[in-house]
Amino acid sequence: MENGSEKWKFEGNKGLNASSVSVRGVYNMLMDSINNNENKKSVIRLCRVDPTDNPLFKTSPDASEAVADAVHSFNFNSYPPTVGLPDAKRAIANYLSSDLPYQLSPEDVFITVGGTQAIDIILPVFARPGANILLSRPGYPQYDSRAACCRLEVRYFDLLPERGWEVDLDSLEALADENTVAMVIINPSNPCGNVFTYQHLKKVAETATKLGICVISDEVYAHLAFGSNPFVSMGVFSSIVPVITIGSLSKRWLVPGWRTGWIAKCDPHKIFQKTGIVANIISYLEITSDPPTIMQAAIPQILEKTKAEFHLKNLNIMREAADIFYDVCNEISCLTCPHKPEGAMSAMVEINFAQVKGIIDDVDFCVKLAKEESVMLLPGVTVGLKNWLRISLAVDASELEEGLRRLKAFSLRHAIS
Amino acid sequence: MENGSEKWKFEGNKGLNASSVSVRGVYNMLMDSINNNENKKSVIRLCRVDPTDNPLFKTSPDASEAVADAVHSFNFNSYPPTVGLPDAKRAIANYLSSDLPYQLSPEDVFITVGGTQAIDIILPVFARPGANILLSRPGYPQYDSRAACCRLEVRYFDLLPERGWEVDLDSLEALADENTVAMVIINPSNPCGNVFTYQHLKKVAETATKLGICVISDEVYAHLAFGSNPFVSMGVFSSIVPVITIGSLSKRWLVPGWRTGWIAKCDPHKIFQKTGIVANIISYLEITSDPPTIMQAAIPQILEKTKAEFHLKNLNIMREAADIFYDVCNEISCLTCPHKPEGAMSAMVEINFAQVKGIIDDVDFCVKLAKEESVMLLPGVTVGLKNWLRISLAVDASELEEGLRRLKAFSLRHAIS
Repeated sequence: MENGSEKWKFEGNKGLNASSVSVRGVYNMLMDSINNNENKKSVIRLCRVDPTDNPLFKTSPDASEAVADAVHSFNFNSYPPTVGLPDAKRAIANYLSSDLPYQLSPEDVFITVGGTQAIDIILPVFARPGANILLSRPGYPQYDSRAACCRLEVRYFDLLPERGWEVDLDSLEALADENTVAMVIINPSNPCGNVFTYQHLKKVAETATKLGICVISDEVYAHLAFGSNPFVSMGVFSSIVPVITIGSLSKRWLVPGWRTGWIAKCDPHKIFQKTGIVANIISYLEITSDPPTIMQAAIPQILEKTKAEFHLKNLNIMREAADIFYDVCNEISCLTCPHKPEGAMSAMVEINFAQVKGIIDDVDFCVKLAKEESVMLLPGVTVGLKNWLRISLAVDASELEEGLRRLKAFSLRHAIS
Repeated sequence: MENGSEKWKFEGNKGLNASSVSVRGVYNMLMDSINNNENKKSVIRLCRVDPTDNPLFKTSPDASEAVADAVHSFNFNSYPPTVGLPDAKRAIANYLSSDLPYQLSPEDVFITVGGTQAIDIILPVFARPGANILLSRPGYPQYDSRAACCRLEVRYFDLLPERGWEVDLDSLEALADENTVAMVIINPSNPCGNVFTYQHLKKVAETATKLGICVISDEVYAHLAFGSNPFVSMGVFSSIVPVITIGSLSKRWLVPGWRTGWIAKCDPHKIFQKTGIVANIISYLEITSDPPTIMQAAIPQILEKTKAEFHLKNLNIMREAADIFYDVCNEISCLTCPHKPEGAMSAMVEINFAQVKGIIDDVDFCVKLAKEESVMLLPGVTVGLKNWLRISLAVDASELEEGLRRLKAFSLRHAIS
C-alpha cells in the first residue's frame, strides 16, 4: 500500500471482487464504448430484463393501492416476524397451490427480499462442507456468485438448444456424485425463453430422485408463458422429489423494484424437515434482513385482487415482442435463434462466425455493436454460453424493432463479402 | 438419517444453526415458560426493542405520505441502482453532514435493507483471511452472528458500567494485533442506554489510529439522546481515523418494519478507497438484494420534511420512560442499574445474587420471571454480559410501570430472608 495508507491493517477482502465478465462489468464496458463513440444515435438497451423498461408494462393499480393502504394503516411499521407475516404466507401458499395437486400450508412459505434474497438464503442452506450443486449452462449468474460466496462447488449441465433448451439429462447424471445435493432449473427460462413441458419436468424429477438430490426450481417468471407450452410448476412432481420453488412479484406484476419474493417448499413427504433443511432456512432467516413489513402486508391484496385482464394484456405484449424478435432475427444471417421464445422475457441467439469478419467473440460483438449502433446486448459468456447473445424482449415494440434494425445493419456491415 | 430420508444426499448446513442463547432462542423459551404457567396475567414484553410496541410512538404522517407518493407515482417500480437511488444518497449525505465538520458526498453513502443488511455487508468486506475484529461486551448479537458466517474472528473489549459504559481503552489496546482490522462501537448504545461524550469518542479515534484499525460506528439510534450528553457522530473524528457509520430510519422515525438503512464512509483522507474497501462494498452490493426502490424514493422527503416537533415529542416520551425505569429500579434491592439511561431505548441492570435465593443465573431469572409474572426480559448472556438483564424501554409508560411492579414483586418473593 502507498499514499499514506501503509499504517492501516485493513484491506478489501479479495474473495468478494466481482468477476470481470459479470453482467455489471460488461454493462459498464458497453456504456464506455457508447460514450466514446461518434454516432449520435439514441441508446437502446436490450441487455437487462426489467419489465419497467417498457412503458406499456405498468403494474396494476390494485397492487399499488395495496402497498399504499398498508402504509396508510400505520399497522405495519413493526419488525416483521422472521419467517414472514402470517397473512402474507397464507396468501402465497394459496396462490401457489392453484398450480399444484395439493394444498401448501403457510409454514411452507418464507418471504424474501425479492428472488435475489431467496437465492442468497437457499444456497448456503445446502452448502455443507464438500457439497456440490448442479447449475444449468446457460443460467442465471446470481446462482454462480452466491455459490462462490458460500464455497459450494458448481457443476454445469447443458440445456440443449436443438431440443428447445431441454435439460441434457444424460450429462446431468454423469456430473452427479455422492456430494451432489441439488440441481437448479429456471422455468420459464431466463435466459433462453423456453417453457418446460410437463413430460420433461417429470423426467427431471425422476432423474433427481434417482440421484438422491432435490430440485430448486426458479419460477420467478411463473405464468409468463405465451406459446404452446403452458407453465407447469416443478412442485407438481414433489411426490417424486422434494422441490424448493423460488418466486417473486417482480416479473408477473412488473415491479422488480418492490423486491418482494418467496421460497416455498413443496415436499409432501417432509424430506426437508427430516434432513434439517427447514431448520436451517429458519436459522438463516433469523440472522438476515427481512422484506419491509409494509410490502409483506400488501401481498394478500396483490395476489387476490389482481384481475385476469391485467395478466392477459401483458402476455399479449410479450407474445408480440417475441413475434417481432423472431421474424427479424431470421433475416439476420449471422445470428441463429434455435427456439422461438415462448416464455419469460429474453432469448438466446448464436453468432455464426462463418458469416462475419473482424469479430473475435461475443464480448467483441457486443462492444462493437454498442460503439457503432448504440445498441446494448448481453454477451452469452455472462450467462455461461460463450459466443451467444442474450436479448431482452422487455422493451417497447418500437424500440425493439429499431434495435433489431440496427443489429441487422451492423451484421450486414460486418458480413463476409 | 432415518424415516425414509436415507437416500437423500443433502442435509442442513450445521454451520448455520443459531446459537442456543440467541435472542430468538431465548424468546421462544420464555414464551414456552409463559404458556405453561398458571397465572393468568397479561404478557408484558420488555425483551425486544421495537418502538412500535409503544402506541404513543407513531411515525410522522409526512414519512408515510412520502412512501405512498412514491408508490402512486409509478416511477419507482424498476430495479434500483446497485449503490442506491442518487437522490436518496444525496439526501442521506446532506442529513448526515449536519452532524459533521465537512460535507459528505452522495458517493459516500450506500443504501441498505435496514441496519441489519448494513452489518451483513460491512463485516464480510473486512473479513480477509485471518483477520479479527473488536466488538464490545455487551454488544449487539447481529455482529457476532455475521462475523461467524464470514469467518471473521471476534475479540471482545469491555464497556465499563462504573464509568457510564465507556470503552475500556486499555483492554482494547491489549486485544489488538497485526490481524485486527476494525472495532465496532454502538452510539447511542444498544443495549446500555448511554451516549458517548465528544472527549471519549476522540480518545477512541486516537486509540484506533494508533492501532491502525478503522472504526465502525453503529449510529442506528443517532439523535435519540435525552440526557445531558448530546449525540456526537464518530464521523466528527474521521480526520483522525477512517470511520464507517451505520444508520437507519427504524428508530428515529419509529419504523423498523420499513427496513431502510445505510452505510456511510466518513473518510476525508480516502483511506477506504486506497485500501480497496470501497470497491469491495460495491462488489458485495452487486450480488446482494437491494432495498425496494419505492422505499429509497421516499428517503429525501422523509429526511427533509419531518418536523422538529415530531422528534422532540418522541424524546420526551423516552426521557419519561427512563425516569420511571430508573426510579423503580432503585427500589429493587436485587437489581443495580449502574447508569441511568440517557439514549437509545434500553438499559442494562445487574443481578445481585447475594440478594436472591433459588436463582442460578440470568437465564434462570428470566425463565422464572416469565413463569411467575408473565414479564419477558432479555438475559444479559444474549448480549454478551452474563448475569445482567437487558430491559427495553420502548413500551407504553403504564405497561413499563406494571412490568416493573411485577419485577419488584418477583424480587421480593425471591429475596434472601
